[in-house]
Parts: sequence; C-alpha cells; structure tokens
Amino acid sequence: MEINDQQIEKHNKEVEEGHIASFAPLVDQLDKQGIEVNALIEQIGSFQIAIPSWALGAGGTRFGRFPTGGEPGSLKEKIEDVGLLHTLNRSSGAISLHIPWDIPEDTAAIKQLAEKFDLSFDAVNSNTFQDQEDQEHSYKFGSLCHTDDFVRNQAIEHNIEVIKYGEQLGSKALTVWLADGSNFPGQQNLSKALKQTHESLEQIYAALPADWEVLIEYKPYEPNFYSTVIPDWGTSFLLANKLGDKAQTLVDLGHHLPNTNIEQIVATLLMENKLGGFHFNDSKYGDDDLTAGSIKPFQLFLIFNELVGGTDTYDDLKHNISWMIDASHNVKDPLEDLMQSVEAIKQAYAKALLIDRQGLQQAQADNDPVAAQQLLQEAYQTDVRPLLRESRIRNKAAAYPVKLFRELQVRNQLVEERGEETIATGL
Amino acid sequence: MEINDQQIEKHNKEVEEGHIASFAPLVDQLDKQGIEVNALIEQIGSFQIAIPSWALGAGGTRFGRFPTGGEPGSLKEKIEDVGLLHTLNRSSGAISLHIPWDIPEDTAAIKQLAEKFDLSFDAVNSNTFQDQEDQEHSYKFGSLCHTDDFVRNQAIEHNIEVIKYGEQLGSKALTVWLADGSNFPGQQNLSKALKQTHESLEQIYAALPADWEVLIEYKPYEPNFYSTVIPDWGTSFLLANKLGDKAQTLVDLGHHLPNTNIEQIVATLLMENKLGGFHFNDSKYGDDDLTAGSIKPFQLFLIFNELVGGTDTYDDLKHNISWMIDASHNVKDPLEDLMQSVEAIKQAYAKALLIDRQGLQQAQADNDPVAAQQLLQEAYQTDVRPLLRESRIRNKAAAYPVKLFRELQVRNQLVEERGEETIATGL
Amino acid sequence: MEINDQQIEKHNKEVEEGHIASFAPLVDQLDKQGIEVNALIEQIGSFQIAIPSWALGAGGTRFGRFPTGGEPGSLKEKIEDVGLLHTLNRSSGAISLHIPWDIPEDTAAIKQLAEKFDLSFDAVNSNTFQDQEDQEHSYKFGSLCHTDDFVRNQAIEHNIEVIKYGEQLGSKALTVWLADGSNFPGQQNLSKALKQTHESLEQIYAALPADWEVLIEYKPYEPNFYSTVIPDWGTSFLLANKLGDKAQTLVDLGHHLPNTNIEQIVATLLMENKLGGFHFNDSKYGDDDLTAGSIKPFQLFLIFNELVGGTDTYDDLKHNISWMIDASHNVKDPLEDLMQSVEAIKQAYAKALLIDRQGLQQAQADNDPVAAQQLLQEAYQTDVRPLLRESRIRNKAAAYPVKLFRELQVRNQLVEERGEETIATGL
Amino acid sequence: MEINDQQIEKHNKEVEEGHIASFAPLVDQLDKQGIEVNALIEQIGSFQIAIPSWALGAGGTRFGRFPTGGEPGSLKEKIEDVGLLHTLNRSSGAISLHIPWDIPEDTAAIKQLAEKFDLSFDAVNSNTFQDQEDQEHSYKFGSLCHTDDFVRNQAIEHNIEVIKYGEQLGSKALTVWLADGSNFPGQQNLSKALKQTHESLEQIYAALPADWEVLIEYKPYEPNFYSTVIPDWGTSFLLANKLGDKAQTLVDLGHHLPNTNIEQIVATLLMENKLGGFHFNDSKYGDDDLTAGSIKPFQLFLIFNELVGGTDTYDDLKHNISWMIDASHNVKDPLEDLMQSVEAIKQAYAKALLIDRQGLQQAQADNDPVAAQQLLQEAYQTDVRPLLRESRIRNKAAAYPVKLFRELQVRNQLVEERGEETIATGL
Repeated sequence: MEINDQQIEKHNKEVEEGHIASFAPLVDQLDKQGIEVNALIEQIGSFQIAIPSWALGAGGTRFGRFPTGGEPGSLKEKIEDVGLLHTLNRSSGAISLHIPWDIPEDTAAIKQLAEKFDLSFDAVNSNTFQDQEDQEHSYKFGSLCHTDDFVRNQAIEHNIEVIKYGEQLGSKALTVWLADGSNFPGQQNLSKALKQTHESLEQIYAALPADWEVLIEYKPYEPNFYSTVIPDWGTSFLLANKLGDKAQTLVDLGHHLPNTNIEQIVATLLMENKLGGFHFNDSKYGDDDLTAGSIKPFQLFLIFNELVGGTDTYDDLKHNISWMIDASHNVKDPLEDLMQSVEAIKQAYAKALLIDRQGLQQAQADNDPVAAQQLLQEAYQTDVRPLLRESRIRNKAAAYPVKLFRELQVRNQLVEERGEETIATGL
Repeated sequence: MEINDQQIEKHNKEVEEGHIASFAPLVDQLDKQGIEVNALIEQIGSFQIAIPSWALGAGGTRFGRFPTGGEPGSLKEKIEDVGLLHTLNRSSGAISLHIPWDIPEDTAAIKQLAEKFDLSFDAVNSNTFQDQEDQEHSYKFGSLCHTDDFVRNQAIEHNIEVIKYGEQLGSKALTVWLADGSNFPGQQNLSKALKQTHESLEQIYAALPADWEVLIEYKPYEPNFYSTVIPDWGTSFLLANKLGDKAQTLVDLGHHLPNTNIEQIVATLLMENKLGGFHFNDSKYGDDDLTAGSIKPFQLFLIFNELVGGTDTYDDLKHNISWMIDASHNVKDPLEDLMQSVEAIKQAYAKALLIDRQGLQQAQADNDPVAAQQLLQEAYQTDVRPLLRESRIRNKAAAYPVKLFRELQVRNQLVEERGEETIATGL
Repeated sequence: MEINDQQIEKHNKEVEEGHIASFAPLVDQLDKQGIEVNALIEQIGSFQIAIPSWALGAGGTRFGRFPTGGEPGSLKEKIEDVGLLHTLNRSSGAISLHIPWDIPEDTAAIKQLAEKFDLSFDAVNSNTFQDQEDQEHSYKFGSLCHTDDFVRNQAIEHNIEVIKYGEQLGSKALTVWLADGSNFPGQQNLSKALKQTHESLEQIYAALPADWEVLIEYKPYEPNFYSTVIPDWGTSFLLANKLGDKAQTLVDLGHHLPNTNIEQIVATLLMENKLGGFHFNDSKYGDDDLTAGSIKPFQLFLIFNELVGGTDTYDDLKHNISWMIDASHNVKDPLEDLMQSVEAIKQAYAKALLIDRQGLQQAQADNDPVAAQQLLQEAYQTDVRPLLRESRIRNKAAAYPVKLFRELQVRNQLVEERGEETIATGL
Repeated sequence: MEINDQQIEKHNKEVEEGHIASFAPLVDQLDKQGIEVNALIEQIGSFQIAIPSWALGAGGTRFGRFPTGGEPGSLKEKIEDVGLLHTLNRSSGAISLHIPWDIPEDTAAIKQLAEKFDLSFDAVNSNTFQDQEDQEHSYKFGSLCHTDDFVRNQAIEHNIEVIKYGEQLGSKALTVWLADGSNFPGQQNLSKALKQTHESLEQIYAALPADWEVLIEYKPYEPNFYSTVIPDWGTSFLLANKLGDKAQTLVDLGHHLPNTNIEQIVATLLMENKLGGFHFNDSKYGDDDLTAGSIKPFQLFLIFNELVGGTDTYDDLKHNISWMIDASHNVKDPLEDLMQSVEAIKQAYAKALLIDRQGLQQAQADNDPVAAQQLLQEAYQTDVRPLLRESRIRNKAAAYPVKLFRELQVRNQLVEERGEETIATGL
C-alpha cells in the first residue's frame, strides 16, 4: 500500500478553493501584524516529528487489548507505515526503533527503504522492562539498578548492542527509559539503586560514539507503583550532569505527577542545556498516552512558548532536540491517531511562533500579567490551521491527511495485505 | 467615574476597520458551514455573567495581600464598578451580593442605582466561615453542621436573613457555601456532621420564597484540610435530592480534586435536573481562583459543550442556571481580570455553539473517536474573537473592553476618587 | 498440596513462648482500659475476607508480566489455593469467582471441594472489559453503556448468566465493574452513556434473585483515560438509588482521584444504607493494586473507624457487607501477598475496635481536636499483632502464616505439582 | 507562666506505675530482639526539634482566622512559650526566628532568656513574601527573582541583615523560602526568573559567615498559583550545587505535588550531601500545615527510615541537619499541637531505629519484597510510646506533656497574663 503523488495532487485540487478562502484573509491579518508569513510557513513545514515503531499497532492496557487490523508485523512494514504518514503530511520524516523488536537483519535494504520514503532514523530505544524468551537473567527486579551484577551487566550489554544497531542505521541518540523501581517500601535501597543505575549508565555512556547522545527519560510510576529509580526531571538532570555533555534529559509529557508545571521544567532544562528530547502525548490522569493536544492543548502551546522563545539564548527550534510522539492507540486507528497528534503539535508550534515576543518581554518587564495573558491569547486564539495546510500543500503533502487517508481506504488495504490478525510488537 | 456612550462609540469607530477585516471572512466561513451568524451573535450577546461583590477588590492569600488602589468601599461603589464593567462589555449585567458585607441600607436607592446600570441581582450569598465582630457564637468549628444547637440556629437565622435581603432586591436564589469541616481525623463525626447540615438546610429551605432556589456549593478542602462536610458533587446532589426541587447543586470550577472530569459532572447534573449554578474561575493546583480560561481553556470549552448540547433534552442555555464568576485577583487589576474572565467564558460558549451537533452525534453513534475529536477541534480552533467583538459593537459595548479601560485610565480615576487605601471587603 | 492440622500445631507450639510474652502484657494493658479481650479476639477471629479467583496468579502491567510458578490453572486449583490460605489464617473463608474464567463445570464437586476447606462463595463478578474468543460483539467501545443494542444486550445476558452460576454455588451478590468509558472528549455522549448504563442495569436488577444484591463499583479512569461511565461514588449511588434496595455501592480503595477522603465516602454510604462491599488494596498513585496497608495503613484504620463506629446506627461489622481483597501481585508471591493483606486489614479492624468510643464522642461534642486525635492515636499506636496471633491460635490457624508457608515450602510444592508455566487467568 | 521541676516530678510520680507496666514488657521484647534499649532511649531523648516563632499563635487561611487567647506578642514571650514546651518535653530545645517580626532589641537579654530555658537558636528565616509598612519597594511581583534591580537588592539586603541578627544570637543557618513566582502563563519569563534568583542568592551566599549554611526551600505553589521560581527539589538542588558546599536543600513535607515519594527525595539528597534541613508537618491536600503524623504517619516513618539508615554512609542523625516544625494551628491550641507534632516525629524516629537493618539489607539483596515489608512492619507496629515516655522521664520532662499542660491550665494562665486579644505575628 502506497500513496502516490497523483492522489495527493488530486486531493489538494479538490480542496483548493476552500483552503484559499481561509488562508488568504489570515495572510492579510498576519501581514498587518508584521509577521512574515512565508518564513513562518517554512518553519512549520520543516518541523519533523519522529514516529516510534511501537506506535503503529494497537496499544492496550493490563485489562486487555482490542486489535486494529493490518498492523505492521516486520520492520519493513513499520517503515512502510511511517512512509505512508510522511507521504500524507511531510512532517513525520523519522522513525524511532525499539530493540529487540526492530533488529534490522538486512541493514542496507532497510536503509534503502527508509531513503525511498525520505525517512531518517531517530533515537534508538533499548528495552529492559520485559523479559525476552532467550534472556538469561530476568528484569523482574530491575535492570541497570539491579542488586545483581549479572543482571546489570546483561542490561548494559543490551544497551550497547542497541547503540550498535543504531549506528548502522544512522541514528545519533540512545533513549534509555527504565522501568526500574519498586512496588513496596523497603523493597529497594533507594539511594543504592540510584547509585547503581548511575554506574551502569557510565558504562553505556562510555560506549557512545563521539557524535551521539544518551537521552535519559524519567517517570514517577508505572510499571512500579511505589518508587521509580529515575522518577523526576531532577534525578534525570542529576545523572545527566554526572555523566557529561552527551547525556541529556528526555521529557515525556505523560510522565509527571498531577498538576506539574511541565513548561517550567522545559524552561529550566533549556537554560541548563540539558533538554535532549521530547515524547509527545497527552493525558488527563497519568501516563495515559493519548493523542497529543487532545486533552490539554493550551499546555502544549505553553511548552512550545518555552521551546521557541522562553530563554534569552534561544530563538527557535535549532537545537539538536529529538522530537518524537509516544502514544498508545487503544481505540483509534494508529495511523489516524498519529496524524492527529502531528497536527496538534504543529498547531502548538505555529501558535507559539505567532507570539509577539517583544510585546511579551515588555509586559514581563512591566509586571503586567493582564497584558502578558492578552499577548499569549492573541497567538493562541489565532486559527492556524490554514498555515499548516498551506505548508503541507507547498511540500506536496495532503491538505487534509486524515480525510485523504479515509477516502483512499488505506486501512482496508492494509488489512487486505496483512490480515486482520494482530502481530504483537512487544508492547 | 462613569464611561459614556460617546467614549464607547469613539473607541469602536477607531477599531472598526480592523474589526471588519477579521469579521467579514469569518462570516463567509461560517456561512459556508451553514451557521446562521446573526442568531449566533445574538446568543453570544445575550449571555450574561454575574459579578460577585467580593471580586471587585484585591484578593490575597494567607501569606499576605497586595492592595490595588481605588477599590470600592460600599455597596454603592460596588454596583458602580459592575456598572463600569457592564458598560464596557454588556455581558456583566448582574451582581451577586455577600451578606453581611453588602447589606443594603436604602434598598430603593440601591435598586435604582442598579437599574441605571441595567444590572439585576443574582444569587445572594451567606457567610458563615468567618466570625463577625458582633456575633454571639463562633463558627470556628462549623456552622450548619455544628454540634451545638445555638451555633446551628445562629447560622440558620443568618441564611434566612440573607434571603430577606435578597427578596428586597429581586434575587431569586440563595447560594450556600459552607466552610464546615474538620482539620483532623476524629475531630468530627463525619456522618453526624452531614446529617446536622441536612437538618439545618431543611429549615433554610422552608424559608425559601416560592420562586426561589437554594444552590448548594461543594468543595473538597480549604479552609478545612482533612474533611469538608459537602466535599463533592455527590454529597451536594444527595442533599439537593433530599431537600426538594428548589434545591440545586452549584459547580465552582476550582472545587475539585486533581484530574476531576468536571464536564462529566455537569452532564450528570444536567441529566438529573440538578445543575443550579456555576462559579467560573480557573486553576492549576487547587481553588486557585485565577481568571477563567487562563489555565485550561479547552476544559472550559468542553464544559460548554455539555451545557449547550450534551444532553438530549437540552439545546441551549435556556435553563434557569445562575452564571457567576468567582475569582480572586491577587496580582491583576480586579476589573481588568473580570473582563478577561468574561471574554474567556464567552469564547468557550461561542465555540461550543459552533460544534456540528449532528456530525458529533453521528460520530458518537459510529464509535468514531477520530471524527469526534476532529469535530470538536474544528469548533475549538475557530477564532471566535470577531464574533464576540461584533456582539459587543451591536450592543453598544466596547469592541476591546480592556483596551478602552486602559485608554480611559479608569483605575487612576477610581484611585483619585476613592484613594489608594484598601477597604477590606471581608475576604 | 495441603497443610494439615499437625503442621499447624507444631508451628504454634514452637512459637508459643514468644507469643505469650507479648500477648500477656497486652491483655493486662487492655484489661486496665476496660476492654473485654476475649470478646475482642472473637470479633477479630470471625472477620472473614474473601479472595478473588484472579488474585491467585501473578498480575502484570501493560509493560509485561513476570510469572510466579505453580499458579492455579483451574477453578479446582483456585479453590485449593484459597483453601491453603484459609488453613493458614482462618480469615479467608470465601472465594469470589470471575466469569467466564471460573465457570464451574461440575457444580456439585466444586461445592463439595469448597466445603472441605470451609469456604463459601462471595459475590460473583462479570466481565465485559475484554473480548473472549467466541464472543459475537466486541466491548471495545463499552458494554452496558454501548450505543448499539446488540452489544448492550449481550452484556446484559452475560451478567444474568453470571447470576445463574452464582446461584448454583450459593453466592448472594453480583459485582458489576464496568470498564465502560471513553478515551477522548467527544467520543461519547456522557449523559446518554450513563442513561443507557442505567437501563441495562435495570434489566440485570430485574433478574436478581430475591435475596441477592448487585454491587456497583466505581472507578475514575483506566482502562479508559478520559471518562468512565461510573467514575465516582456519587454516580454509583445515583444508580443504586434509582435501581432499588438491592443495589448497593462497592468501594474499591484504589478507585479514587488523588487525595480523596475515602473514609468520608464510607461514612456517607453507611448513613444512607448503600455500602454494599469493599475491595481492599493499597496505592500511592492510582489503581496500583498493592498489598492492603502497605502504603497508607493509617487511612485503612480510619476507614475501619467509620465501619466500626462512625455512625449512630452502627456499632460493628454486622451489616451484610461484602469484604474482598482486590490486589495484583506483580513482584510478590500471590499467596504471601494475600496473607499480608489479610493481616493488615485485620490490624486496622482490631485497632478500630480499640478506640474509646465514648471518649471520642465526648471530644467531638467538645470540639476538642487535640483530644480526638489523642484517642485515635492511642488505639492506632497499640501493637495489636498479639491479638491477631491469639485469634489465629484459638481458631487453629498458624500463629505466623507467612513464616509457616515458607517453612513448608508451599510454593515449591505448587510448582512441582503444577509446573513453572504460567496459566493465564484472564487478567 | 512557668512550669517548675516539682510539678513535673509530681506528675511523673502519679503515672509511674502505669508507665512501668507498659515499659517493662517492651524492654523484655526489645532485649530479645538484641536491641540495646538504653542506647535507644538516649538517642530518642537527645533528638531536638526546633520551634518556629510563628507557630506559637493561631494560624489562619485566606477565609479568616480564629484566635487562641494568650498568644505571645513579643520575642521574649515567644521564647517563654518555647521554654514551656521544652520544659514539658525536653525535645524542643531550639527556636527559629522570623525577621522582621523577631528582631532582638536587646540581644544579650534575649540570649540570657534562651539560656535559662536551655534553648538554642536554630536557622533564621527571612521574609520577602509580604510588604512591611516602612518598605520602599513592593514584593508583589517577587523579591530575589524580580525584574527590577532595586527590588532585588532590597531583598538581598534584607537577607544579609537577617544573617547579622542570626549571628548575634548564635544561629548557624539562614533559611530562604521564596514566594516568588507567577499567577498566569506569560507573566514571568520562567528561566530569567530562575537566573535572577540564582544571582541574588550568590550575593547572599557571599555574605554567609564561614560556619553558616543557607537552606533553600522549595514549594510548587501558593501563594503563586501558576509557577513558583523554586518549585521542586530539583531546582533547589540545582541552585545549591551552583552556589557551593554551604548551600543545601530544605525539605518541607507539605511542599510537594500529590503522590510525591518524599522519602525518595530525602534519600537522593542524603546521597548527594545536600539535605540541609526539614520542616515537619502533615497534609492531605496541599501545604495544609497540619500536625506532624496526623494524616500520614507511615510516610513519616519511611522518611526516618531513610534518615536513619537509607544510605551506606549514614547510620544515624549525626549530620548537621536542621530539624524544625512548620505547622499552622487553625483549630488547636498551638502549644498542644506542637507537643503532638514532636511526639509523632519522635515516634517515627524511634520506630525507624528499631528496624532490623541487617535483615532489611538481606531482604533487599534477595529481592524479597515480602520479607522487606515484614521487617518494616515489625518496627512500625511496635508500640514505642513507652520508650518516648521513659526518655522524657529520664530527662526530667513530663511523661504525658499534653496531659500536664491541661492539668496545670497553662493556656488559661497565658490568657490571664497576656489577654484574649490576638497579637498578629506576621502570618
């Protein structure tokens, strides 16, 4: 199943008139505000968000899983799915692999396939939260933090192996998410567990190629429900500082306690040059892994406000930050859900680019919260959908990706090609 | 300090061109969607949100208070302040009084003043969370729930007196917010406290005029920090059911535990015909009493989605629901803050009116969450500011109320008239 | 694998001296407080907590599962496991079945087996949160709340079938936990979903035998992450009231938003005669399903304070309340975990029985929170372990159940009998 | 009002028999466990917890305040109140002052008075969260973080002045709690605010005497409700690291988001040698400032588990950590409340000392969470009240401090001496 240029063109023709009717007056309005619309559209268009290989199939909860048909069963099919997405929106130009599920057997062929779809390889992800069939030691009681050297070494080796696979494909970062932690008070010596994790990370860090980074994810709970070895940004930051410049903190939006001010964490990490990557999703309760922007779109906008202009030394997304979606698709078609996530992320980015920076700085200098709120709202209330659409049209993507996806009956075709049967992808 | 028609007209003239540039293309766009724009603007314009008398001065926290100058020191001045707001936005056509601070001495004069500004009197509010100087019994350990009959009777009498004042002015509802609760396990017999509260409310209910309602507010904590006698909607609903048809639940947006799905509570209360009133504000942590829509504007939109179309039997805000702002102004000018709240509430309302109801019902019947989200987003992403502005212009209010407020230097004039000194208003 | 009386007796002999050394002075101490120790021990000993069939194997999270060996693979083995527990502690004299996993093929044999272990059958549980292989309609988008009559009817029929199985075994209650809800705003018409759930429950209610109850569980989130059809006690209570006297609310300790005052919910439900059952577990973050009392033992004590003496009309656990553990065993041996849960629950109960009720009522009447706290602490700080041990010894259970379980190497024997392989039990 | 030795002795005589009846069997029991009871009692007795000067009067909320009579109105009276406490429990041997309210006019006299009661001066506290009458610049929009140099310098100078007062009295630490933050998105440039706070702290740090420390408190919200400049331990730690060895993090138990694992923060800070001080209190919802141990006593025990034995390099409370209560007394007599807090803190400490460290390390090495939980529970369930009582009796404090306080009618005498009128103490 592939979508060709003619199909995209035809779709864009059909919706052209309606698009222009909303785009043209917006250009006028932004012009009057002194905004260079073409540059803005260029910025929006060039922002790429990586797709993790595990997000292409139906997710699930401990209570069960309801499969979507036509899920990809091999690395090749996963790349084809991301290729489909990228063809439709020209904004998903990277894939993030998960080892051991995505071990490339024929690296050259895989790279060629990715090139064909104009995809690069984002951060690679290790897995030490599950036991694999052929695994010598169990991760039931942790991996990099484990009390037992054998387990710890196995986990270190696995991470180093993941780096090797990543190098072959052209990745430049390893993302380490640890499920390590404890379910009961007393189960773990909390400080020893952190110390051992640090020592394990040092060995992984030592194996990093010169131009690589290791991104350290944090999460307060789940799958452990009393403590997690790296529960918060402070602990990730502490470790990243001890390890060195190539170690950075990764922020997953769902990995915070209730009411956390995430945009402030982003601001602090940016100031300290330790923001290495992002996992986008949305949530109401915990690590719900819902579509980005579906629950708290204003928070997403505030985060991009920090990313785009929150610090003195930073004026756009130039930094080498790894952008990725990390969501679970329990009731939606995974590909449709990913397109909705990408759209919401880019809306937040576009709106953040519209903020009157000078005005905001002035309001801040004047301690005028009424004016500051007004300025944020002026950007946030602006309907930026025509800008995103225009950027897609210019990049030969579909004006309305989900609409075209449905019209072309992509899912049906994938089911025909791959079957209704679900192929487990490890999560 | 008053604002006259000429000042409004002049302001609206000055901004007319810019307004039309954004309004005209929006009309086109909505026309194409089959929306009757004039009816929509009429709906937006006629929606009135009451202002509580205590929100006209600077609020504060237990750590201190930073006064704004020119705060109103008498009921007359409070009405004048709401009059100023209503002149500017034609959307704040009611005032909600707080007894004992707002006891009208000359009822006729007060009513005349309110009429002059086209203001009505919304729900009246009793106060049993503080001790007044001349008070016989202390509310330190509760009021309607108290273990002591004397205290309970004093609180009941106070509420009945509040009804009397409200009747004189034309109010039609009594709002009861109880601080009653406990700070420590064991301090209170939890079920007895609820039972006694119920019995006290029965006596107040018996004193309600035929066309009145009593609105029962709930709140999980603060100023008591272990238990509150009416902590949640379930308890308020239980009491309202026991009392009868004239008893209803009042929802204050800040009075919920972390992560509560408030729009669902609204849906349930609407279905059960027990939603009596609303206190608008916004919050990130607790009862923060921030400007409506400043933190979670999407949640506000989802609440209006329920209010406007969430139930079968309900298609617009026709019900006799009491709409009020209840915010605290710790760092903003109270009048500016109130204008920002009204704007955000009306934006949420306008966007909810734009939702394609038929489409949404179809998506729900099809169990198509992708389409449902799309439909909500189409309404939410629409820039409705031109609609609100147009409705104000049509109603002879200011196109940009905060802007005009600042240009006319209203606050400075109020300070000149009333002085820098803060006048305590009881909160 | 069975444990016989001789093994218990031998164990109790070995620890007798140590036990008496701690028990005797406690008796003295309690005597001085005017507490009838024998009656107390009788109360403690007769309190039975049901074990759900799904708690006998290793649980897991969406990130994986680490099997324990020797898990029961059939209803017969599940009953044997609960039999083992009951032999060890004489406090787990009931089993709660989960249909379709525990459908009894030979009812007479199953009842006989249960009798042999002195076990009764607690509430039966339906399951509509997962799809079974032979199932006609999917529960992906709900069951009792579904938009589609066919799905709804299938779910209603399933519940009625569960009642039938329960009747055959002597159960007296059906527990309904619904995963029904939505993951995204707009996905579901919130009030319609509640209404349809109500109508479905009415049909199930109509099928209840005369001496049965239906227990309606509530839960704010998971597996749905935007809304749940029955999110809180208020909604369960609303439904139970509409249905009638045989409908009751079931409280699962893990099913609350952060910071909820659960003991107050218990007090309110007791006052309203709507507390039908309990699912015991503990949690720090969400529905963590940890060992009862392992995280918040004081909260458990406060809950028992309400159960034992919180209301006027209630002085002990006489009511027909269904007591059950509902925990997940991700890193502990399930049987050991269950013994620790039972111990913690009974400690909380015993401590609540020690509260000086008259003193507490006086402190409450005096509004003396210092004294009230003191009285609760006097009970809570008392070391009641010797009382629990004594009640076990008198009932011919093991003084130290976990200790004996380990000494007898029960798990090893179960692994030998049943194998290392995990048998999926549906959760 | 003073309590003399004879009154204490008389009281202790009266309760001696009852005390011995509970103490003697506990000694036996602990002896059998190999615990050196005398050393334990010595440890318990020598643990001193400082009392802040602002905790001696009634607290309040933004909704009002209910005064206790006989509150201290001068530094002299505050020292006398702490003297009363220390006489009663011999565990409150330090006072923590708050400038500007506690500026000592006659330093020599104040020191002499403190010596008379055997009190030392704990950390001194600056205040930049309120405006004082004679203050040039307002802290409405922050202090150390302020956009304006004049305000920032004023706040820096104030802190340096506080150090001077502290030096005169023999304090060794400055505690900095900042209310600095923002109420609305956009109000503050988050990273600039942090940077400016850092620079301000550098100047204060430079003014520290050689043997002093600065303790940096964190708090996620209140009195600001969108962001706080130092919201979490990570930010405090970041600042303390940048400043140097004399800068440390201070943990206030109430200053955390819902569900935070505080004991893990303690473990991490201990490991990093950055735990400088503690503010004890308890809470259910936010910074509720309730009596220590009144809501989550098990959490307090787990915190002491870390303090006493959580790290390799740490085996008792030898470190130079500042221990202080920071609670607000809204409905209790402040002195009674403080005695209850001290009792609960020492219970947690005593229980933590009882933990079988070797056993726990073994269980952790074995990844045996059942055994680990068992070992913690064995210590936690032990009734340590006789140990605390014995330590008081040995130190010539009252066996039952609250009881004696009431019998001697201390509050009545304070009211007679000082009057019913409340004296504002700044909070």
